[in-house]
Amino acid sequence: MAKQKKAPRPKAIPPKGFRDYFGSEVTERSHMLSQIAEVYHRYGFDALESSAVETVEALGKFLPDVDRPNEGVFAWEEEDSGWVALRYDMTAPLARVYAQHRNDLPTPYRRYAMGPVWRNEKVGPGRFRQFYQCDADTVGTASMAADAEICAMLADTLEAVGIDRGDYIVRVNNRKVLNGVLEVAGLSGDDKEEERGIVLRAIDKLDRLGVEGVRALLGEGRKDESGDFTKGAGLDDLQADIVIGFMEAGAATGAETVANLRNLVAGSSVGEDGVAELEQIADLLAAQGYGPDRIIIDPSVVRGLGYYTGPVYEAELTFEVKDEKGRPRNFGSVAGGGRYDDLVKRFTGQAVPATGVSIGVDRLLAALRMKGRIKSDAQGPVVVTVMDRDRMADYQAMVGELRQAGIRAEVYLGNPKNFGNQLKYADARQSPIAIIEGGDEKANGIVQIKDLILGAKLAQDATLEEWKARPSQIEAPRADLVAAVKKMLADQDADT
Amino acid sequence: MAKQKKAPRPKAIPPKGFRDYFGSEVTERSHMLSQIAEVYHRYGFDALESSAVETVEALGKFLPDVDRPNEGVFAWEEEDSGWVALRYDMTAPLARVYAQHRNDLPTPYRRYAMGPVWRNEKVGPGRFRQFYQCDADTVGTASMAADAEICAMLADTLEAVGIDRGDYIVRVNNRKVLNGVLEVAGLSGDDKEEERGIVLRAIDKLDRLGVEGVRALLGEGRKDESGDFTKGAGLDDLQADIVIGFMEAGAATGAETVANLRNLVAGSSVGEDGVAELEQIADLLAAQGYGPDRIIIDPSVVRGLGYYTGPVYEAELTFEVKDEKGRPRNFGSVAGGGRYDDLVKRFTGQAVPATGVSIGVDRLLAALRMKGRIKSDAQGPVVVTVMDRDRMADYQAMVGELRQAGIRAEVYLGNPKNFGNQLKYADARQSPIAIIEGGDEKANGIVQIKDLILGAKLAQDATLEEWKARPSQIEAPRADLVAAVKKMLADQDADT
Repeated sequence: MAKQKKAPRPKAIPPKGFRDYFGSEVTERSHMLSQIAEVYHRYGFDALESSAVETVEALGKFLPDVDRPNEGVFAWEEEDSGWVALRYDMTAPLARVYAQHRNDLPTPYRRYAMGPVWRNEKVGPGRFRQFYQCDADTVGTASMAADAEICAMLADTLEAVGIDRGDYIVRVNNRKVLNGVLEVAGLSGDDKEEERGIVLRAIDKLDRLGVEGVRALLGEGRKDESGDFTKGAGLDDLQADIVIGFMEAGAATGAETVANLRNLVAGSSVGEDGVAELEQIADLLAAQGYGPDRIIIDPSVVRGLGYYTGPVYEAELTFEVKDEKGRPRNFGSVAGGGRYDDLVKRFTGQAVPATGVSIGVDRLLAALRMKGRIKSDAQGPVVVTVMDRDRMADYQAMVGELRQAGIRAEVYLGNPKNFGNQLKYADARQSPIAIIEGGDEKANGIVQIKDLILGAKLAQDATLEEWKARPSQIEAPRADLVAAVKKMLADQDADT
Repeated sequence: MAKQKKAPRPKAIPPKGFRDYFGSEVTERSHMLSQIAEVYHRYGFDALESSAVETVEALGKFLPDVDRPNEGVFAWEEEDSGWVALRYDMTAPLARVYAQHRNDLPTPYRRYAMGPVWRNEKVGPGRFRQFYQCDADTVGTASMAADAEICAMLADTLEAVGIDRGDYIVRVNNRKVLNGVLEVAGLSGDDKEEERGIVLRAIDKLDRLGVEGVRALLGEGRKDESGDFTKGAGLDDLQADIVIGFMEAGAATGAETVANLRNLVAGSSVGEDGVAELEQIADLLAAQGYGPDRIIIDPSVVRGLGYYTGPVYEAELTFEVKDEKGRPRNFGSVAGGGRYDDLVKRFTGQAVPATGVSIGVDRLLAALRMKGRIKSDAQGPVVVTVMDRDRMADYQAMVGELRQAGIRAEVYLGNPKNFGNQLKYADARQSPIAIIEGGDEKANGIVQIKDLILGAKLAQDATLEEWKARPSQIEAPRADLVAAVKKMLADQDADT
């Protein structure tokens, strides 16, 4: 590290859009990811950790022939590799890895991946440029059993991390059905791309706008509450009826929904293919006991990404939260995915069918926190205070014994002069217990054990009787330190 | 993902110096890191995950006023943040985080961090540009108890992950002692920087060159086996004796070593400070029972990094391995660190003392693999084969039951036409068991359960008796599938 010669002091901030995660923010996420990994592993998926940096050409979103790649990724030029970038998702790297190692990997290849991805996008409240994703994909099989399996695994995963059955729903649709519906509605021509885009976006807004709002967008257009006008797709009533019929084709069981869809796409071969695929998925899931309380066929699922070619699916958390204006709404989507049969082909020229899901780690973690399902290990350490700085070895011996017994513990390492500062430190550390051994205690072979949690509680709202009934500080023989601390921790646990 | 219009196919390779990690490579590292985190946590250290991207000025190694930062990091320019770079270690980001959040963090702040770092350096065999580090640091205290604690924690950590006592040693030294020795040897002047550099590098080579080799480098210089000449520091015999005396000051106990060093640096105030610090550390460790079988004071420890200001320490694995030429040598260093009191000051102007250690994750993992201390979870899944593709739901139901029982299991999702391919797949997956249910079995309510591990063993070297004694394939009622698989897995476990 070169010396800074009178250079101005650097600013102590991360780059715009980046943040740091502290203590339980890190360990809670890590715990959730290991629960997820356990489910994925049981389903036969293998871990993969690909490099964080990829060549821009392998990521495929950007053309390397411009001086500076488009925004969206963090990219730069390296002498020996050309333009490289931080991965923006886990799917593009998987396609590269599979194309590179396909002769050594089993086929089909089931893999999971978890880690940070980076997006060079606009920053907003709660929107950061580095965030976690957790993906599972099956590469190398066109079987609908692979899609059904991932939907089932997604449901199992949500329950494994602590989302109750009834608080989530996995919705499944199929791009081909959608394409079939558009064909039947006369919107399949190359000249209809703009209309198709408007229709997809309109379907995606069903939740928010209701059927009549969507119908307006399918027709001439719609004026919103603020008076802004959104141009519609210009469909006539018959065409709009077909699209609306599609959106409303969802029924109580997968079999009924499939029957409704089959009627709608009659005559479109791509549509009929799509319905047959949905039917296979519905049958497989029904046979495995994944009922409509967990997974449903839902024609309103669109999913944004352009590369999906067949089944698409997403997991929504259905319990209610308040939005920023205090209005109730569903928590919303925490995972999504689908079948993308063309990503590996970019590299190899051969079609390699694949399907997979990505969990939004931060959103799922936020949901678990909201539901009180995070068992936090945030408890601070037992703090051994320093009454006599020349006896640091004595205090170190105490924490040594406590740690040996599996108890999180530390010696106060700041300036010990002011004892109040030591207790303030213990407070900042959320310590449950402080240990005190001054000269008198040492001479008498005892230690003081201070119950900081009870102390805080008593300080707040205790009656005189409570004060007397249970002292927040006890004396114990030095030799009984570990046993006494263990007992106090157990009492605290029992209280909460 | 934009469509590639007749663009040449992208190459399916990561950028130069990057690689992918598969299956157990990922999970074994993850398991080791969680064992380490558990020890750190018990010592009162809190997790921190800082952003992977930092401003170049915050990282501090490079000046932002050049058009393109020096090599060594991966850096690029962002419109809204200026020059940014991937972190090259965990210490520079910690200094930034502490400077930024110091009013909200406890003081002292004990934190650990684990994750990838990136270095834009020359690539070689086993040298990659992205690798893991695992650090623990205490910021905000000048107390030697913090340094002693980290040395003790390092010893505990190595034992926790599976390095036996006797197979490692933590060595502690102090930069101030070294500076004192150089002062006593008349090498403290500003005009002696080159000589000091040569002396430090010479000390660092003691292991490899022996005392006489180092003495040559301290004097006129040394010709190595290949005939290449390395220029020496030009010290006279008296000066060289002082340095050699320093290197050989290590004794059976910390107290003796400290006494030897005190004699050597007599008259140098910085040297005497350093000896006093070493003495404190030695006393604290001795009081806590960390004897010289685990931690020793070792004057030959230099540590490369320029920013260390006091104690320096490293952990070496002492068991023997063969080098690339088959010669025996110690496994070597797997962790190192020390006290760096000036890193936070760059940001705040105020001195903030700090000390910490970094574990080389990949090297420690390699050592554990060598010692057979990795409990691999690499066992493949039970593979349910597909005899009749129309009964996929039946096969899915089987894996569902197996997974419910906690058994890793999957259905074969490739093209089921060729049964041989299914068994080849099971082999590639390292499956312990394959399940077979054809039409006849279905009709009779049974399944075939094939012991692939026993099968492989029998195929290799079984006698006829063994073949008969224990069939590698059994029949079980369909209803007993889970119980029969469990029993077979247990039998396999017992065999190994």
